[in-house]
Amino acid sequence: MTLDATAAGVYAIAATPFLPDGAVDYASVDRLTDFYLGCGVTGLTILGIMGEAPKLDPAEALAISERVIRRAGVPVVVGVSAPGFAAMRALTHGVMASGAAGVMIAPPPTLRTDDQIVTYYRQAVETIGADVPFVIQDYPLTLSVVMTPTVIRTIVMEHPSCVMLKHEDWPGLEKISALRGFQREGSLRPLSILTGNGGLFLDFEMERGADGAMTGYAFPDMLVELVARARAGEREAAHDLFDAHLPLIRYEQQQGIGLAVRKYVLQRRGAIAHDAQRAPAGVLSAAARGEIDYLLGRLARVDGRALV
Amino acid sequence: MTLDATAAGVYAIAATPFLPDGAVDYASVDRLTDFYLGCGVTGLTILGIMGEAPKLDPAEALAISERVIRRAGVPVVVGVSAPGFAAMRALTHGVMASGAAGVMIAPPPTLRTDDQIVTYYRQAVETIGADVPFVIQDYPLTLSVVMTPTVIRTIVMEHPSCVMLKHEDWPGLEKISALRGFQREGSLRPLSILTGNGGLFLDFEMERGADGAMTGYAFPDMLVELVARARAGEREAAHDLFDAHLPLIRYEQQQGIGLAVRKYVLQRRGAIAHDAQRAPAGVLSAAARGEIDYLLGRLARVDGRALV
Amino acid sequence: MTLDATAAGVYAIAATPFLPDGAVDYASVDRLTDFYLGCGVTGLTILGIMGEAPKLDPAEALAISERVIRRAGVPVVVGVSAPGFAAMRALTHGVMASGAAGVMIAPPPTLRTDDQIVTYYRQAVETIGADVPFVIQDYPLTLSVVMTPTVIRTIVMEHPSCVMLKHEDWPGLEKISALRGFQREGSLRPLSILTGNGGLFLDFEMERGADGAMTGYAFPDMLVELVARARAGEREAAHDLFDAHLPLIRYEQQQGIGLAVRKYVLQRRGAIAHDAQRAPAGVLSAAARGEIDYLLGRLARVDGRALV
Amino acid sequence: MTLDATAAGVYAIAATPFLPDGAVDYASVDRLTDFYLGCGVTGLTILGIMGEAPKLDPAEALAISERVIRRAGVPVVVGVSAPGFAAMRALTHGVMASGAAGVMIAPPPTLRTDDQIVTYYRQAVETIGADVPFVIQDYPLTLSVVMTPTVIRTIVMEHPSCVMLKHEDWPGLEKISALRGFQREGSLRPLSILTGNGGLFLDFEMERGADGAMTGYAFPDMLVELVARARAGEREAAHDLFDAHLPLIRYEQQQGIGLAVRKYVLQRRGAIAHDAQRAPAGVLSAAARGEIDYLLGRLARVDGRALV
Repeated sequence: MTLDATAAGVYAIAATPFLPDGAVDYASVDRLTDFYLGCGVTGLTILGIMGEAPKLDPAEALAISERVIRRAGVPVVVGVSAPGFAAMRALTHGVMASGAAGVMIAPPPTLRTDDQIVTYYRQAVETIGADVPFVIQDYPLTLSVVMTPTVIRTIVMEHPSCVMLKHEDWPGLEKISALRGFQREGSLRPLSILTGNGGLFLDFEMERGADGAMTGYAFPDMLVELVARARAGEREAAHDLFDAHLPLIRYEQQQGIGLAVRKYVLQRRGAIAHDAQRAPAGVLSAAARGEIDYLLGRLARVDGRALV
Repeated sequence: MTLDATAAGVYAIAATPFLPDGAVDYASVDRLTDFYLGCGVTGLTILGIMGEAPKLDPAEALAISERVIRRAGVPVVVGVSAPGFAAMRALTHGVMASGAAGVMIAPPPTLRTDDQIVTYYRQAVETIGADVPFVIQDYPLTLSVVMTPTVIRTIVMEHPSCVMLKHEDWPGLEKISALRGFQREGSLRPLSILTGNGGLFLDFEMERGADGAMTGYAFPDMLVELVARARAGEREAAHDLFDAHLPLIRYEQQQGIGLAVRKYVLQRRGAIAHDAQRAPAGVLSAAARGEIDYLLGRLARVDGRALV
Repeated sequence: MTLDATAAGVYAIAATPFLPDGAVDYASVDRLTDFYLGCGVTGLTILGIMGEAPKLDPAEALAISERVIRRAGVPVVVGVSAPGFAAMRALTHGVMASGAAGVMIAPPPTLRTDDQIVTYYRQAVETIGADVPFVIQDYPLTLSVVMTPTVIRTIVMEHPSCVMLKHEDWPGLEKISALRGFQREGSLRPLSILTGNGGLFLDFEMERGADGAMTGYAFPDMLVELVARARAGEREAAHDLFDAHLPLIRYEQQQGIGLAVRKYVLQRRGAIAHDAQRAPAGVLSAAARGEIDYLLGRLARVDGRALV
Repeated sequence: MTLDATAAGVYAIAATPFLPDGAVDYASVDRLTDFYLGCGVTGLTILGIMGEAPKLDPAEALAISERVIRRAGVPVVVGVSAPGFAAMRALTHGVMASGAAGVMIAPPPTLRTDDQIVTYYRQAVETIGADVPFVIQDYPLTLSVVMTPTVIRTIVMEHPSCVMLKHEDWPGLEKISALRGFQREGSLRPLSILTGNGGLFLDFEMERGADGAMTGYAFPDMLVELVARARAGEREAAHDLFDAHLPLIRYEQQQGIGLAVRKYVLQRRGAIAHDAQRAPAGVLSAAARGEIDYLLGRLARVDGRALV
């Protein structure tokens, strides 16, 4: 299972479960993997920003990757972004040897100019090897690196191993249209575009030409259904489903506590045993937990998946 | 009409209408003012970030202020943030002489430490005079200045003329709770808290203790109704109304093009003659206009105000 | 006197003198203008960042410009950077009508991508008019906007009215070499490059191909001599002079208090009556003043100009 | 050898030598350690920002630490800053077991408010253990985190294991004075302050109350002599020595290529075999190498140590 430019559907950004004492909760790693598979996802993305990757030591990162890849039976993309290339190389080689489908690379926050971004991906490809399929993570709100469609095209055309864009610009609808326009005019080869941002614009992103979603919203089963309906051209049904979930999607999209919301819902859904995070971590107040419960209750009236 | 800490309800953040050639559209200034009044707003806030204030020259800023204040008959808050104190002083004196209810001051993006923020507001109060009621604008996503509840309390307690917080932190629900907690414990005097961010969290902000909204969502009539229902304790009705508008509220909250969305809807609602902005400005593609039209159509099924 | 790409020598970045009560000290404006002329500068640059331009109101900015231009008899460049184009247009038209040689435009700190920077200068030229000679201010340390040599070339080639680069990147020696290399290969037309950063690298900047300096170091007479020696090929003499001043140049290059140092020295040299700044302003402690006095004393042993 | 608040003198920030193929050059690690000892340093600091620590994998970091600690015979401080606490804990335990004198911790670039900074150091101390002496690295220019003297005092007073400040604010002279003032008034316990920034203000930092330097300037022997002269009250001699080196100190202080300059000089002085860096790395042009050679030649006229 190797990632290529035909990838589509939903790749769930997987949380990393911890025990209350901070140790990795491997039993929940398995349970969560099964949960995602039960939701019908096409693939998994692990060790991303929301997977608390920087809080893991290298041995843990590798152990989790091996465990998920062995169990999943679907393509697994592994985040290998690191402050230095030595760590990126070591992790990439480890997870590809374990059967990962590809890796995802975010630009370091210090990059500014178009040239700096293109050069960074050139060095990254030298680091991981030109034979390893990789995903560009384009996430300006968190990383403060802004990539134009032209820069993305330059990277894609320079590296045949670049097969996917994790599109997480905000706002980003025009970026999808621009990239698809490049392809229509013949200046960009096929590229999978999966969108992030917790799904906040997934309704229209599909209409603009996205191939699916790569995000961590705690209802990946809804994402799967939404992507399917959108691809089937059932516009009204797709928006109805999206709108029902939007209050919770919106609530999850709070910087600093978004992951806490997500883990709380995953725990309530039985996908993980604890909603613990490693420090530093955003913590939910009692009021916040009450608000989430309230939103779940309202959602459950129209979507039985929220009956938890 | 002087702003004080009992202010509540909805203060609409007013757009500034322009003609297609970039001149101020004074006829639409009047029409828009009437539109807001017809929506039942408690007050108006003009020359804010979304009012394209930095694109006006000082004479225009003063002329618009005078015109709106004279016509409105409700309290008008004027944004006087400026790169230098000379401009802040001149504009403040001008608009207060014209009958403004108070001014709003955002911190410059270079501030970092708690001390720097407190010192800045001390200098600002020296600039505008201790007798001019002012609003703190707390908007980290755009301004990159982060104010803790403690810093806000320090500023409020130091300056009796500080009567309101335009709360626009994101996420910010805990900040409202923290400030209201300070008041319960007696360490903070009364303070009006009106929330921004386009209304994206207004449903819960009201429940956390906000006094209302100060934001520019293109359906201020909905904001007025929502705030009234929330204050009346009609929780379900408030959330139902909010959820119906959330797809559009969400769409409006796109950095760079949010104002274009807002002006487009205001134009469709007949509140302004043109959706023109002064450069630099985000522009809506045909696809984006189609998406807004679609959202308005869906909204109109449950809220007749969207029949435009 | 119109600025063109043959400009060379020293353009002093002029301070703006204030009285202790914060009013503009017009007598010192004249005295300082005469001081610069006595130093042998080729031109003057007023209303730059170090000239406290954002702290002036528009009427003051125009009054100071007119006064300096009338008195100077050398080309005067006026900084017209502003948060909005309306203010930029008004100030540009005002000062060009008064006889300014050209204007200087810095990019707003929000720009990130190459395209955004190029687009901004396109809009700026539309604003000021294609007939007004302008200077690009390239100052990443303060403005956080990074322009590659390629971006600068694009702007220069697109706008015949772009005649000068105020080079203030840090480090920036390779940028000068890259631009001069573009010219040797024929891809860039003639362009004046004057360097800033308080002169901290002026010794080598001249050797890399700069045409001179545009900076505010409090010994413009030294800058004039240094540029002359460098252009005459007197390498050792140029470095000897530079090295003697380097301890003070270095001391002046402290963010936040650099202008205070500069005004203190200008006052000690008799060029202005007061070293007052408008708020917000960095303030020199007694210890800092003592350190400057000490550095002046050491400098005076080898350069009589420091006997103050 | 455990670090405590009486530490003084020069702690050289050690470069990490690499072979041209990117492997760690352990022979040069030894040679460089001997070089520093021959310069008379009081201690060493390894795995700092200039030590390319983020480019090492954990095994390399530990191997280098053990090797330097075993050989040095002077206190060795190890940089343990990491994106997550798991990595910080693992490295700290490893190097303390190997005999490190203490560790150095820089704040992550995302911190903004005073509370966030104080909380981060609280979590870091929980991570490394309250018995491990640590150094606060205060380096706003690179890290964009601004710590007031009050915040530093809070951290120091809360954690007895905080024994040193690596002072690298810029400008930072007043910060040293403020901290020493806190101690005179009795609100701050003893604290070692060693200064960084390549030594660019070391002349006056010593006069303001610094205990010495912790920086990587390629002439640590000069730093040792300068600190000794300053502490002996030989003001003129100290400044004469400083001024002779200032042109090179200044040249080394160029962001992005500073380390390349430093390694080039260390190689010319015979302290390391190669000036190679791991990617991403700034590279010196032929022109830059020529400029450094020229500066060394000029320096050699007054300081024989530069005869290389």
